Amino acid sequence: MSDTFTELAANLASIAKSFHARGWLLGTSGNLSAVVQREPLRLAMSPSGIDKGELTPDQLLSIDDNARIVSRHSGKPSDESLLHIRIVKDRGAGAVLHTHSIWNTILSDLYASEGGVTIEGYEMLKGLQGVQTHDHSEWLPIIENSQDMAALAEVVGKTLNEHKEAHGFLLQRHGLYSWGDSLAQAKRHIEILEFLLETMGRTSFIKRKHAI
Amino acid sequence: MSDTFTELAANLASIAKSFHARGWLLGTSGNLSAVVQREPLRLAMSPSGIDKGELTPDQLLSIDDNARIVSRHSGKPSDESLLHIRIVKDRGAGAVLHTHSIWNTILSDLYASEGGVTIEGYEMLKGLQGVQTHDHSEWLPIIENSQDMAALAEVVGKTLNEHKEAHGFLLQRHGLYSWGDSLAQAKRHIEILEFLLETMGRTSFIKRKHAI
Amino acid sequence: MSDTFTELAANLASIAKSFHARGWLLGTSGNLSAVVQREPLRLAMSPSGIDKGELTPDQLLSIDDNARIVSRHSGKPSDESLLHIRIVKDRGAGAVLHTHSIWNTILSDLYASEGGVTIEGYEMLKGLQGVQTHDHSEWLPIIENSQDMAALAEVVGKTLNEHKEAHGFLLQRHGLYSWGDSLAQAKRHIEILEFLLETMGRTSFIKRKHAI
Amino acid sequence: MSDTFTELAANLASIAKSFHARGWLLGTSGNLSAVVQREPLRLAMSPSGIDKGELTPDQLLSIDDNARIVSRHSGKPSDESLLHIRIVKDRGAGAVLHTHSIWNTILSDLYASEGGVTIEGYEMLKGLQGVQTHDHSEWLPIIENSQDMAALAEVVGKTLNEHKEAHGFLLQRHGLYSWGDSLAQAKRHIEILEFLLETMGRTSFIKRKHAI
Repeated sequence: MSDTFTELAANLASIAKSFHARGWLLGTSGNLSAVVQREPLRLAMSPSGIDKGELTPDQLLSIDDNARIVSRHSGKPSDESLLHIRIVKDRGAGAVLHTHSIWNTILSDLYASEGGVTIEGYEMLKGLQGVQTHDHSEWLPIIENSQDMAALAEVVGKTLNEHKEAHGFLLQRHGLYSWGDSLAQAKRHIEILEFLLETMGRTSFIKRKHAI
Repeated sequence: MSDTFTELAANLASIAKSFHARGWLLGTSGNLSAVVQREPLRLAMSPSGIDKGELTPDQLLSIDDNARIVSRHSGKPSDESLLHIRIVKDRGAGAVLHTHSIWNTILSDLYASEGGVTIEGYEMLKGLQGVQTHDHSEWLPIIENSQDMAALAEVVGKTLNEHKEAHGFLLQRHGLYSWGDSLAQAKRHIEILEFLLETMGRTSFIKRKHAI
Repeated sequence: MSDTFTELAANLASIAKSFHARGWLLGTSGNLSAVVQREPLRLAMSPSGIDKGELTPDQLLSIDDNARIVSRHSGKPSDESLLHIRIVKDRGAGAVLHTHSIWNTILSDLYASEGGVTIEGYEMLKGLQGVQTHDHSEWLPIIENSQDMAALAEVVGKTLNEHKEAHGFLLQRHGLYSWGDSLAQAKRHIEILEFLLETMGRTSFIKRKHAI
Repeated sequence: MSDTFTELAANLASIAKSFHARGWLLGTSGNLSAVVQREPLRLAMSPSGIDKGELTPDQLLSIDDNARIVSRHSGKPSDESLLHIRIVKDRGAGAVLHTHSIWNTILSDLYASEGGVTIEGYEMLKGLQGVQTHDHSEWLPIIENSQDMAALAEVVGKTLNEHKEAHGFLLQRHGLYSWGDSLAQAKRHIEILEFLLETMGRTSFIKRKHAI
């Protein structure tokens, strides 16, 4: 394994532990990846079915752009590797993170009929790459969930193309995807979007926006 | 003690610490077990009345299928050992975990009159053994609480028989039981069910499903 | 310092750290004590104005039954030492713990006009010393807050006398007191009462018991 | 670097880690400073765009009263350094801390139309410097958010002058500022104000004060 892979694997394991502690990757849910090299594409990808609170750097897998393992590692890459690869290609992302938090699950459901959720007016938005002011409106698309990963990757690609400014998207009753040029930026984006989704969810409790 | 017992005891203590930190085993509540051997049955069982945040591997007890201690350890096995044994026998489980979380307590009460709670449509359900899609409906039976453990074990056995697909059950105003082929699978099941119960509970706040 | 003091001080510091992490002792709030000897009374008492997440065993003070320091330690014992001493004398307690959690603050306010809060029907109640079944009704008295510690100690004494079965009490918009024969039992009682107060508070959100 | 700077930098990094764990500094948000010397003013200031959970003491920057770096360190001081400097000057503060918590964000929005939020009657208020009783009324002004830091520093100065008793203020949909004579006191003030804002926010859920 290259030095780059080794370093990225250590950082991915550290982020997995931190996010698991926050309850964003419970029950082996979620997955994490980072680009090791672009030509040909090599991605350090979290394995399927592993407790993210116990993930060790040597469990990370090196995969190609068809989600096939290219290292001597045993294991099975995450089922959602095709989504990561699509995001890496379409956004030029250096890292992709996917969390299952309670609040992103709730909001992905409450706003599903609107096709997405608008987050606007919060200072925290400035932490999203390229955003210069709290007076920004972020549209987070919500995509219908599916077990057909090839088909879902197509829908993700279409969504990324239609919403070129989006820093993430939600899968309905499933979770949040975000990414960044670097792994540190992807981590920052996830923390910001999780914070804002929880803030909006709790505010709607008070304001009863969603009362039925 | 066998190597198996020693390894399971270390893993049980580690899970106890992690769940106590999340507030799922406060005040010495909850209990944990894992199968050491099947013929005759030997179970590594958490002792009664011990702070789960401080549980050490040497405090785990080896019990037989009548919940009698069979090792040289002193201590008293959990009062609910008979429930663990019943689950191990009826489900062929390799490990059983029982948590007292705030959300499982609340939902075990809110849904008691319906006899159980349906969890459906969440991606997280895929983490339950044998579930292949989010388009799954999990029925979590709710059993009336009792201090008569022999009688309660009978009701648990009857419930397990009537709901052969269930991955867990709730005791009303008491807590959650889940299990798995292995201890890692049982831990995964608890994390998933706790996540989903909290998600449903918080969603019902917004939707006021339970308003009176 | 005696071996007993040294051991209790270490355990008090450890509990302080754990409770501070849970948000029950923020901003130097709360206080902790344990009986070193009874005749004459010597109490290991937390100092006033110290960050409980940073409390070290050597900061614990030895005080007598008038809340005067009897060791060579410098520092000022907690303002509420007189309440601890009263509880130790009237209940024969071996340890007293006082937490400021968000949920005990909320419920101490919501139920103040009723003079206390009834907690009943929860399995968790069994963790309170002497309680044998979930079918138990615990009355947690609520006392009006005051800055006159001598006067407040009198009210506490009167309340303890009127509610001989109570395992704790609330000071309105202030916090929770509980105690135990040992420090481990006092910690168990706090964890249980905090759990139950949060459970009741969250349930009342759903049921809107307190809606105005 | 002076011994003072070195010690303050270590304490600032430790507080950053602790607050990040509580979710008050997610996504590189928030900033922290402490006075190293007054004449001329030297402030140990957190850098811009750094993960506060990973902040190391050597990343702290020494700045002057124009927010210019005066040490050999590379890096960029926080955009909000001018607000810190203004608070240090106008309040004579020894340390300034700024957090982005979910609850301070929510309340800064809900109470914005009232120009501030009154916190009164809580024992926790006694932890604010100079407050002797729970029977105290704290007015926490809410200032409209802005990206023009020079202009915002002016508004902050005006607000501090108009509300000489205030121990902190909120920026709308942005966060909380508090300070203290020492870093320990500033940390205490933040913990107290965060606790009280969350307590009030959760109470208003029950009482539906803000229902629309």
